[in-house]
Amino acid sequence: MIKRFDFSPIIRTGAVVRDLPYTDGMPAPFILKDNSFVLQMDDKTRVYGLGETMRGINKRGWIYESFCTDEPFHTEEKRSVYGAHNFLIIDGEERFGAFFDIPGKITFDIGYTDSDTITITPEKFALDLYIITADSLKAIVGEFRALIGKSYIPPKWAFGYGQSRWGYVTEEDIQKCADSYRDAGIPLDMLYLDIDYMDSFKDFTVHPERFPDLKAFSAKMKERGVRLIPIIDAAVKKEEGYSVYDEGHEKGYFCKDENGEDFVVGVWPGKSLLPDFLNPEAAAWFGKKYKALTDLGIEGFWNDMNEPALFYSERGFNNAAEQIKNLGSARLDALSFFGVRDTLAKLQNNPDDYKSFYHNTPEGKINHYDVHNLYGYHMTKSAYDALCELRDEPSLLFSRASYIGAHRCGGIWTGDNHSWWSHILQSLQQMPGLNMCGFLYSGSDIGGFNGNCTRDLLIRWLSFALFTPLMRNHAAFGTRSQEAFAFGDTEVFRHIITLRYRLIPYLYSEFVKAVENDAMYFRPLSFDYESDETAATVEDQLMVGDSLMIAPVYVQNTVSRHIYLPEKMTMIRMHEGDISTEELSQGRHNVSVPLGDVVFFAKSPIPFAKPAMNTTELDWENLEQLGVR
Amino acid sequence: MIKRFDFSPIIRTGAVVRDLPYTDGMPAPFILKDNSFVLQMDDKTRVYGLGETMRGINKRGWIYESFCTDEPFHTEEKRSVYGAHNFLIIDGEERFGAFFDIPGKITFDIGYTDSDTITITPEKFALDLYIITADSLKAIVGEFRALIGKSYIPPKWAFGYGQSRWGYVTEEDIQKCADSYRDAGIPLDMLYLDIDYMDSFKDFTVHPERFPDLKAFSAKMKERGVRLIPIIDAAVKKEEGYSVYDEGHEKGYFCKDENGEDFVVGVWPGKSLLPDFLNPEAAAWFGKKYKALTDLGIEGFWNDMNEPALFYSERGFNNAAEQIKNLGSARLDALSFFGVRDTLAKLQNNPDDYKSFYHNTPEGKINHYDVHNLYGYHMTKSAYDALCELRDEPSLLFSRASYIGAHRCGGIWTGDNHSWWSHILQSLQQMPGLNMCGFLYSGSDIGGFNGNCTRDLLIRWLSFALFTPLMRNHAAFGTRSQEAFAFGDTEVFRHIITLRYRLIPYLYSEFVKAVENDAMYFRPLSFDYESDETAATVEDQLMVGDSLMIAPVYVQNTVSRHIYLPEKMTMIRMHEGDISTEELSQGRHNVSVPLGDVVFFAKSPIPFAKPAMNTTELDWENLEQLGVR
Repeated sequence: MIKRFDFSPIIRTGAVVRDLPYTDGMPAPFILKDNSFVLQMDDKTRVYGLGETMRGINKRGWIYESFCTDEPFHTEEKRSVYGAHNFLIIDGEERFGAFFDIPGKITFDIGYTDSDTITITPEKFALDLYIITADSLKAIVGEFRALIGKSYIPPKWAFGYGQSRWGYVTEEDIQKCADSYRDAGIPLDMLYLDIDYMDSFKDFTVHPERFPDLKAFSAKMKERGVRLIPIIDAAVKKEEGYSVYDEGHEKGYFCKDENGEDFVVGVWPGKSLLPDFLNPEAAAWFGKKYKALTDLGIEGFWNDMNEPALFYSERGFNNAAEQIKNLGSARLDALSFFGVRDTLAKLQNNPDDYKSFYHNTPEGKINHYDVHNLYGYHMTKSAYDALCELRDEPSLLFSRASYIGAHRCGGIWTGDNHSWWSHILQSLQQMPGLNMCGFLYSGSDIGGFNGNCTRDLLIRWLSFALFTPLMRNHAAFGTRSQEAFAFGDTEVFRHIITLRYRLIPYLYSEFVKAVENDAMYFRPLSFDYESDETAATVEDQLMVGDSLMIAPVYVQNTVSRHIYLPEKMTMIRMHEGDISTEELSQGRHNVSVPLGDVVFFAKSPIPFAKPAMNTTELDWENLEQLGVR
Repeated sequence: MIKRFDFSPIIRTGAVVRDLPYTDGMPAPFILKDNSFVLQMDDKTRVYGLGETMRGINKRGWIYESFCTDEPFHTEEKRSVYGAHNFLIIDGEERFGAFFDIPGKITFDIGYTDSDTITITPEKFALDLYIITADSLKAIVGEFRALIGKSYIPPKWAFGYGQSRWGYVTEEDIQKCADSYRDAGIPLDMLYLDIDYMDSFKDFTVHPERFPDLKAFSAKMKERGVRLIPIIDAAVKKEEGYSVYDEGHEKGYFCKDENGEDFVVGVWPGKSLLPDFLNPEAAAWFGKKYKALTDLGIEGFWNDMNEPALFYSERGFNNAAEQIKNLGSARLDALSFFGVRDTLAKLQNNPDDYKSFYHNTPEGKINHYDVHNLYGYHMTKSAYDALCELRDEPSLLFSRASYIGAHRCGGIWTGDNHSWWSHILQSLQQMPGLNMCGFLYSGSDIGGFNGNCTRDLLIRWLSFALFTPLMRNHAAFGTRSQEAFAFGDTEVFRHIITLRYRLIPYLYSEFVKAVENDAMYFRPLSFDYESDETAATVEDQLMVGDSLMIAPVYVQNTVSRHIYLPEKMTMIRMHEGDISTEELSQGRHNVSVPLGDVVFFAKSPIPFAKPAMNTTELDWENLEQLGVR
């Protein structure tokens, strides 16, 4: 059952697809106190959800803020990341779900200030609140997902493996990467184009020297089963003569400052404007621009920088420069020095800047800050709506920033993580929260975006990520090469990525089933085994579809791990490309997992396809059932 | 057996206390290749040591750089931290220890570039190399420790619990903290004074209003069993009329630039000078200054900022300010913006600054950069030598920066960590490496220095740290209060800290025994159970002294953990102050550890003292033997 409570929302966010009547009274079991929603927890209470946020599957013991943020350091204390996913399930004396539908900032104190108290505080008290009760954790998710509408389903080929790198600058770089994968016999379906494919970082342009004929190159790549997936950044370079700028400026499609002038921000292209995606006319206009690339044979995109990320604003930088000039070194002490440094650091994603521009929405002019969390969602929607018009086939689309609602239009990836062992586990722990909120097509940057990857880290990360719908290896400019062919020996990588392809029929069908049933593709063990108190505490294993459980290794120099089986299962082991099985009893086990082996667990037989070099070549029909005699 | 190899060291570091003859020939099993020491590893090779460095007990799979660094983010990719500890044990086809005695930068690539290769590269090829072989891992450590001399033993009271906070500004703050501990019935032996006790951050001064009579206050605190432990920073404020500056300047005791002028750096006091601790006369002079505080009844110190940390240099800041002024916002693009930001960020601990000043050593004028890693060591030695003269009793002394050799003069703490769950484990994993290198009196900032601590994090951290010789709760300015009385309920904290006091007779005697025997107080399981392949992979348990094993919980929202017992042991459980025991068989177990319980494991009976409010009140004689019937 869903009850909707009216706290005077300032705007319809678009998150929900059903128009439920409002319920009178208080939103029990929360009590209202000083404009916060408050609930006491007992020792056993667990809290699930909150989408992409940091920390464990059980969100208890920290404070989270929904405010879409370009956060490059995913350390455990961070309160905000790229997405704003205001749905949680409280599994305590009372068990219920709650969705706080609010486009601005909201804080979830889940036993941070006081270990036993949940305090949820919208910065502006204007929202819709949905309280959801049902017979089980899964049923609560099902009710919520029916409320927010069916999740995005990507094309089948998007279940292939993709390679990305900020640093492939030219057609030759891409060609070389494709060749290296083919030469190593490692399957590949997608190669991603990061910002350097553009001309001066201008959206919907292609650099004339670096990619002199993208249409021909794209066709050539597709012939060998590889699709090119370019990035689209949110902001548009301010440059007269650049048609996207000229049109947008003329038609008033960019966000405006308080005087009605285009609000200038600094991002990759330098001075840029923010398309007003909350203006449906502007959104439709921007979406149509993707045609420049679909005309070249492009079938998928990743939308980036759409929190929106701001490196600086013009006014912010001028103030900072003035401050530094006035300080001088003459009277420089440590605190002044750190003050200057902080001033520059705080230019990035500065709240004052977010408060300084406006959207022209159907509901009228609205300050960006109050609807900040909708920006990425509406960018994704703009692209999705346009691509449905422009193309007959489904397109690949995923985004960095998001709000619930965006799950109907595309996937998300978990943003700019690091080449840290801890980020394998972090990624695993993010998946159930994302699934609850409707984001099923998701995954993390394999090998880590920032920092330098090692061979063993990549092997272990792939061994987990082969189960994530979005399977992309991605790295930042200047970091060590981390392609599956980059560490000399390629066999071990070929075996793991080939295993992915052998499992695609299972993974894809479970994915589609989850979408159709408003269910979760990735689930904490507690969702399938509600009465199992041990299962409820497991934070490093996941159910994948109806038949599988995974328990990846995420610790360096380790060759075994502890696992818990809530019921007897078949352990499936991939060793040097060969599959073997072993029956394991319910309970705790220590399982040997040498580097390069992939071990997972089946409740029922799993269909395996024959190895294939890409999804086009994959035989989706003739499958072998393995596991569970 | 120890072989010493001569690669023309530029200076005697003081690390070793025995003058071994040089051995001719190559330092097998290393081979020399392009001025690197190279060794192939097989799959089973494990590498131990490297002191304070990040990551696991087994150092394999990363690259480490010895270059003492004020590093405020202890994330797993960091190569350098505060200490330079160039001793490692390679446990492979051949098993041996190696100590690279070099005062400058040296890089240890332990299977980072190539998974199977160790490559050790001194930046300047001028060092002494010691290759140590023996019958066991423990024996290798024993040989090395005999080479470097006996470790520092602190006063007994330094095994008590201490509270620190950058943010106790006045006598009243300290008094209030002491009272809160007493009122809560929580034992306490030390209260630390961070930089604010000084007058304008000037070493060896006391702020006249904040601590109007430190001598009287110190005596008052000591009457109730609490000692005050002030910080001493390395650099001296440049201020005419401040006697330490005037004297040091006049006598030429500060580090000089290439023209022989005092080299000016920016740290907490603003413009400051670096005492030339590598000049024995200057070191002796600085050491004597501690008298200003011992005369006030102070019995211990922590030396800080002695990497030395540099926030900026005068010339660096002027260059940066010029760059920013010239840039302006007119032609500002993203890369220029990040360039400016990076320029300011890189002012801190800039290598060019380290290359710009000189020491006046007995061996002549030496560029700081070449002997950088000795600076903190010689500051500690300066204080240690002086305190031995100034006081009849042993003094407490520990440092942030260090080099091997400093272990004879004081302890170290592991620097400015974070309130992260991962830092409980990181701290555990640092301990064996530190012990190998002689640093036995050590510990991490409990609850985390940077960031905000939660109640459960503090409970779990204390439950581990009660076994570390240095047990100090410390936090940064502006962070949430994290004293043991700060989270409302104090009982659970009282029980854990009381357990520490009950164990002090065991912990202290095991510590002293380890010093006397050149042994390790904290050991990886593999050191005690060399033929046990499972024990060798355990990265989250430690042996503590001869009789104990610990296996702390370091994951949030967890109430049990997997442990491995290499032999049968008695599990000792502290629950609400009560001690119970249970026999456990050799092998793997899953042990229930509710929040607030402390669980550890005994091979032989453990002496427990009666609870006490401080070490002065502690009855060290009448002990009860618990565990192992």
